[in-house]
Amino acid sequence: MEWTREKRYLPYSKWDADTLLHLQAQAANSPYQMHYHLHPISGLINDPNGFSYFNGAYHLFYQSYPFGAVHGLKSWVHFKSKDLVHWENLGLAIEPDTMADSHGAYSGSAREIDGKLFLMYTGNHRDENWIRTPYQIGAWMDKNGKVSDKTILFKNPDHITEHFRDPQILKKNDTYYAILGAQDNAEKHGHIDVWKSKDLKNWEELGYLDFTDQDMGYMIECPNLVEVDGHVVLIFCPQGLDKKVADYDDIYPNMYVIADGIDFENHKLINPGPLQNLDKGFDVYATQAFNALDGKAYEISWVGLPDITYPTDDENWANCLSQVKELTIKNGQLIQKPVKSMASLHKNEKDVADQVVSENAGQQYELELTIKAGQKGNLYLAANDDLSSGLKISFDTKNGQLILDRSIAGQKVAVDYGENRTAPLQPDSDVKLNIYIDHSLIEIFVNDGENVLTGRYFADQAHSKIAFDKKINFNGKLWNMKTIL
Amino acid sequence: MEWTREKRYLPYSKWDADTLLHLQAQAANSPYQMHYHLHPISGLINDPNGFSYFNGAYHLFYQSYPFGAVHGLKSWVHFKSKDLVHWENLGLAIEPDTMADSHGAYSGSAREIDGKLFLMYTGNHRDENWIRTPYQIGAWMDKNGKVSDKTILFKNPDHITEHFRDPQILKKNDTYYAILGAQDNAEKHGHIDVWKSKDLKNWEELGYLDFTDQDMGYMIECPNLVEVDGHVVLIFCPQGLDKKVADYDDIYPNMYVIADGIDFENHKLINPGPLQNLDKGFDVYATQAFNALDGKAYEISWVGLPDITYPTDDENWANCLSQVKELTIKNGQLIQKPVKSMASLHKNEKDVADQVVSENAGQQYELELTIKAGQKGNLYLAANDDLSSGLKISFDTKNGQLILDRSIAGQKVAVDYGENRTAPLQPDSDVKLNIYIDHSLIEIFVNDGENVLTGRYFADQAHSKIAFDKKINFNGKLWNMKTIL
Repeated sequence: MEWTREKRYLPYSKWDADTLLHLQAQAANSPYQMHYHLHPISGLINDPNGFSYFNGAYHLFYQSYPFGAVHGLKSWVHFKSKDLVHWENLGLAIEPDTMADSHGAYSGSAREIDGKLFLMYTGNHRDENWIRTPYQIGAWMDKNGKVSDKTILFKNPDHITEHFRDPQILKKNDTYYAILGAQDNAEKHGHIDVWKSKDLKNWEELGYLDFTDQDMGYMIECPNLVEVDGHVVLIFCPQGLDKKVADYDDIYPNMYVIADGIDFENHKLINPGPLQNLDKGFDVYATQAFNALDGKAYEISWVGLPDITYPTDDENWANCLSQVKELTIKNGQLIQKPVKSMASLHKNEKDVADQVVSENAGQQYELELTIKAGQKGNLYLAANDDLSSGLKISFDTKNGQLILDRSIAGQKVAVDYGENRTAPLQPDSDVKLNIYIDHSLIEIFVNDGENVLTGRYFADQAHSKIAFDKKINFNGKLWNMKTIL
Repeated sequence: MEWTREKRYLPYSKWDADTLLHLQAQAANSPYQMHYHLHPISGLINDPNGFSYFNGAYHLFYQSYPFGAVHGLKSWVHFKSKDLVHWENLGLAIEPDTMADSHGAYSGSAREIDGKLFLMYTGNHRDENWIRTPYQIGAWMDKNGKVSDKTILFKNPDHITEHFRDPQILKKNDTYYAILGAQDNAEKHGHIDVWKSKDLKNWEELGYLDFTDQDMGYMIECPNLVEVDGHVVLIFCPQGLDKKVADYDDIYPNMYVIADGIDFENHKLINPGPLQNLDKGFDVYATQAFNALDGKAYEISWVGLPDITYPTDDENWANCLSQVKELTIKNGQLIQKPVKSMASLHKNEKDVADQVVSENAGQQYELELTIKAGQKGNLYLAANDDLSSGLKISFDTKNGQLILDRSIAGQKVAVDYGENRTAPLQPDSDVKLNIYIDHSLIEIFVNDGENVLTGRYFADQAHSKIAFDKKINFNGKLWNMKTIL
C-alpha cells in the first residue's frame, strides 16, 4: 500500500471501522508492543502533549495517527493517571475537525485554568494549493473529558515561516505566556518565539527567546520551560544543529539549557548555561515537562524520531513514550529519575549476583545493578543462549565509560546514525544501573539519573537471557514489571 | 437514531472509523464505566466466550457489538491474563466475515488442542429472506492471537429450530463432545443437545441431555459443564422457565444443577440435583466456566440481560462482565469466591467500625464486613449525605435475611422485574460480606461465597458515602481497588 499524500490526510470519517479494529488488534498483539509504557492503540504516535495536572489527576495526551505507521492526519489521544505510572486510556480527545486544524491537531500543552483544562496547540492547515498556515488554537476540556470551544488565538507573524508550532502555555503573576518553535522567514533559522496574553484571547508577540549566541539550525521544535530546583530549564529540539555547536548522534537531538530564570517581557533566559543532550541513548525526542502542584518537575518523551523508520512499520504501528521521569539538578546537569510509583510495578524480586543474571528474564523487567569499580566487561540483555545476539552494555568502571550497543540486537534501526551510544562514568568508581526493559524499549538510568540512555531495539522475543560475558564483581536485583495497559 | 435491522447488521467495514473512535472515547469517559471489571471498549458486550488456558495465560473473549448499545452484528474481542484479574485487551479476534457467520460470530468456547486454541462457536447466518441457519463453526487461534481456518462443523438437525447455539467443547478420553443450547422443532421447548467427534471434523448428534424431568421453557442458552470437587456442574440459562419449576426474579435466570457425573454416550447427567439460581442478585447471565490445568473451576458472567435496556444505552455502550470466581461445592450448593489475585488490586487498607463507614469512599472499593448476629439494619452504599439515595443492603442477622435494594440508587433499571433481591442467611449468626463496588456494578459475596448478589446500578458518582442507618455491631475493612483497564 502506498501512502500517498491524499491517503495520509484522508479524514478519519473516510476510513472504515473494520480497518481500524484490525489495526488496533495488530498493535495489541505485536510481540514488540510495550506493556508498561504508553504506546499506540493503533498506528503511529509521536510527541507527548498536554502533560498537566487537573481535577485530581495527571493528564497526558499524545500525537496519534491511527491508520498506519506514517505521519498522517494527527489527533490527540487522552490518558489520565493518579501516579504517573498507571494510565487510563480515554481515547480521542482533539480531532482535526475545523478549518484551522484541518490537516492535523498538532502538538501543544495544557494548563488548568478556572476549573477547566486549557489546551493550546498548533492547528495544521493547508489550502487547496497545499500552502500551510500554522494556527495556534485554544480549546477547553471539562471534567468529563469533553473538549470544546476551539478558538484560533494567533498564527505565524510575517517574519516567521509556516514552521511555527508546539506552543507551551505558561503563567507568571497575572499574565499568560506561550513559547513556540519557529523558523525565521528571512534567515530560515530556528528560534523560540515568546508571546503574551492577559486573557488567553488577545495575544501579542514579544520576540525570539534569547538563550544562546549560537545558531540553532533551521528549526526548533517542542520548546518547554520547567522550573527545577530554583532554576529554569529549557528543553527543546533543534533541527539541523551543527555538531560543532553541540555534539549529538541521532538525526535530531533533544537538548536542554539550565538558566537562573526567565525574563518573559524581555524574552530572555537569565544566565543560561551550555547546551546539553537530554538523553545519551537513541530515539528520544519531543520531551515535554511541567511542574506539578507541589512544584516537582516531571518529563515524558516520545521514544521515536522524525524521519526515521522502525521495524514495526511493517505491522502498521510505530513508537512509544518513555516512562515519566522526575527532574532535579546536580552540578549543572539535569538528574532524571524514575518516579517513585514505578516501584509499584515490581513483582517477584530476586537478588542477582551470578555471571548469568537470568536464563530467562522475560521481556518486562527492571534490573538494578551495582558494578564495582575497576572492571571492564559486557552485559547482554534480551540475549540468546551463546550471547551472539542481544543488547550489549559495555562498561569500564576503571576509566569511566558506558556504551549501549544495539548492533546485534535483532532487526536494525537507523544504522546511519550509529548503532551505539556512549555515556561517561566516574573513573575508578562503582556504577549503579537501573535498566528497564519493555519488549522493544530499553531505558538505562546511570547512577540514579545522572545519565539516561533510552532506545528501541527489535530482538527475537524468545531471547531473554541476561548475562555478563565473564565473571564480574557486582550485586543487584531483578524484578518483573506488571503490565499497565 | 433509529436502529433499523439494516443498520444493526451493517458490516463493520461500512461504519466509519471516526464514529468508532468517538464511541470508544465515549465509553472510556463515562462516569459509569467499570475500572476493574471487563467492560466494553465501545458499544454493547454480552456473553463471555472462550474462557480457557493456553500458551501460559488465561484467555477470555466476549461478545461485542462495537457501534452502539444494541444487539447488532457480533464479533469476539480477545483478552489475556496471567492471574484472572489483570486483563490485556488484544482486540477483535473473530469477525463475522464468512457466509456461515455473516450475521454474527455468536457465543462459544475454547480449548487448547495440539498447541493451538480451538474455538468453537455459533455462526449466525440469515439468507435474503431473513431465514436463519445456526452453523457451528470451528476455528484455530495461534500463539500470536491470529485466528484462521474457520470451518463449518455442523448445523441444526431437522428436529431443532434455528435456536441452536453456544457450543461448549469438551473432551473425555479420546473423544470430543459439544453441548449446545437448542429448541426442539416439534414441541418448541428448550434442551441441551449433545454431540460427539473423534477428529473435530465429523460430528454426530447423541441427543438431548437428560438432566431434569421438568420443562425448561422455550429455549436454553449457554450450557456449560464444569467439574467441581468431584462433581459435574451444569450451568445454563433457561428462557421462559415456569416459576413453579424454579423461582427467579430476572427476565431470564442463570441456573445450575450439580450431578455426580455425566454419561456423554447416553447423554445424561448422573444423579442430578435440583435447579438452583447461580446468583441471588440482578443482571447475571450467560455464565461460562472451565477447569484450569490444576483442575480448579473458574466462572465469569455477563452482567447484563437479554431484552433489558440500561441507562448507559444513552451513552452508546452497555454492560460488563463480572469478576472471575472460583467454584467449590458445600452442602449441595455452589460456593463462588473471588480469586485470590483480587487482593492484588487492594490499596489503602482501612479498618472500619463506625456507623458512618466512610464519608467518601469513591467508586472503586472492596468493603469487607462482619455483622454480628441478632441485628437488623440497613447499610447504604454509593449514598448521598442524608442516605435518601443509595444502594440499600438490609440485613437481619437474627431471622436470617439479606436484601439488596436498588430502588433509590439513581437511574432506574428493569423495574418490571423488581428492584430488590433477597438471599437467606443463617439465623442468629454473624454474617460476613465482601462487597465490591466498581462505579456502576456491585458484587456481594455472602459468607465467603455461599451466596453472591450481583447487580448494576446507576447512581450519581458524587454519592460515595457508606453508612449504616443506626449503630451496628460490626467490624470490617475497606480497600480502594486499583484500575485494571
